[in-house]
Amino acid sequence: MEIKVYKEIMEASDQIAQQIRDLLDNFRIFAINLISSPGSGKTTLLERLIPVLEESGIKIGVIEGDLATSNDAERISRLNIPVAQINTGSGCHLGAEMVHQALKGFPLAKINLLIIENVGNLVCPTGFYLGENIKIGMMSVPEGDDKPVKYPLLLNVSEAIILNKIDLIPYTNFNKDNFINYCKRINSKVKIFETCATTGEGITEFVDWLILKSKT
Amino acid sequence: MEIKVYKEIMEASDQIAQQIRDLLDNFRIFAINLISSPGSGKTTLLERLIPVLEESGIKIGVIEGDLATSNDAERISRLNIPVAQINTGSGCHLGAEMVHQALKGFPLAKINLLIIENVGNLVCPTGFYLGENIKIGMMSVPEGDDKPVKYPLLLNVSEAIILNKIDLIPYTNFNKDNFINYCKRINSKVKIFETCATTGEGITEFVDWLILKSKT
Repeated sequence: MEIKVYKEIMEASDQIAQQIRDLLDNFRIFAINLISSPGSGKTTLLERLIPVLEESGIKIGVIEGDLATSNDAERISRLNIPVAQINTGSGCHLGAEMVHQALKGFPLAKINLLIIENVGNLVCPTGFYLGENIKIGMMSVPEGDDKPVKYPLLLNVSEAIILNKIDLIPYTNFNKDNFINYCKRINSKVKIFETCATTGEGITEFVDWLILKSKT
Repeated sequence: MEIKVYKEIMEASDQIAQQIRDLLDNFRIFAINLISSPGSGKTTLLERLIPVLEESGIKIGVIEGDLATSNDAERISRLNIPVAQINTGSGCHLGAEMVHQALKGFPLAKINLLIIENVGNLVCPTGFYLGENIKIGMMSVPEGDDKPVKYPLLLNVSEAIILNKIDLIPYTNFNKDNFINYCKRINSKVKIFETCATTGEGITEFVDWLILKSKT
């Protein structure tokens, strides 16, 4: 019975995700599902990324997922773009039905890129389709160079991995070659970007790729 | 139906956890369930902790939980203590049935402290009882001082929080007072320890508390 119920839940979830996809298609919106551990720097990355993208004429909307607080949505709203906060309570990932709900009343006509910042978790969010075009994974230097092989699910589903906090490499035993090799071992096609979200280092390369990606 | 199945699963899980508890009680073993994000330093902490505990006459066994690889068990086995690796595959937390299985053949008569290192995840592991005496949470400086309020479940269930990687404070915008206040806001009774697992800083204070705790 357990497996049957799980299958029913997943099918219902995928159906709602497809409704989101149809909705976004109607508005010609490209959507990203951004996944990382807690504290890898997702929100800080968005704070850096959004002004650069807006300068390129891209109009952005953000959905923030967290168990509790609206801290992240408040940070993003300072950039004067539309943002919705989802609080999952004890939920370990964003569900399609939550995103669908959050998009009601969202000014979809005014954006062409939707960034969904998932709950900080390297496991559960990888298994759920939210209507996005691509999933992007993020890992940060202090988490250690072995994380790609220990959490392979993220590599399996991500088109790109952002390695953040590269400014901390000198103060850790992080080996960048190992990290890249581990990523490629799980997903040979994955693109890897190196960033420091607090200083903005590496943001331009990622933005260039993202703009190209959103047009294909 | 979904809620009913969930309830049945949780009841079955708690029954197995109780069997683990009875088993450990028979052998007078104190058990810890160690929970953190990926890469907070759980295994490095154990590498530092175990020799100090063994010097105090405590005999330790370790269960390592990871999605993939036996890297952590290999690291711990170099300390010449009994260790079992559980690979959860796509599972986001250790389940009681996995721990119960891993304890078959485990030399329980030879240990008096069992450390269960859970899958790196700040959400799901907090909801499952594995027969442990206490849950201990770990957070690290690069994850940011706001994590206690954004992931309150861990604070709710933990008797102690280990703040690791304090050597990185000078290179980040981490505010320790904020971190401590946020922890206490969620759980006013929680003990907070500050460590640097790579250098061993703060390990003694934690060991002293743990030894006292395991005797009460």
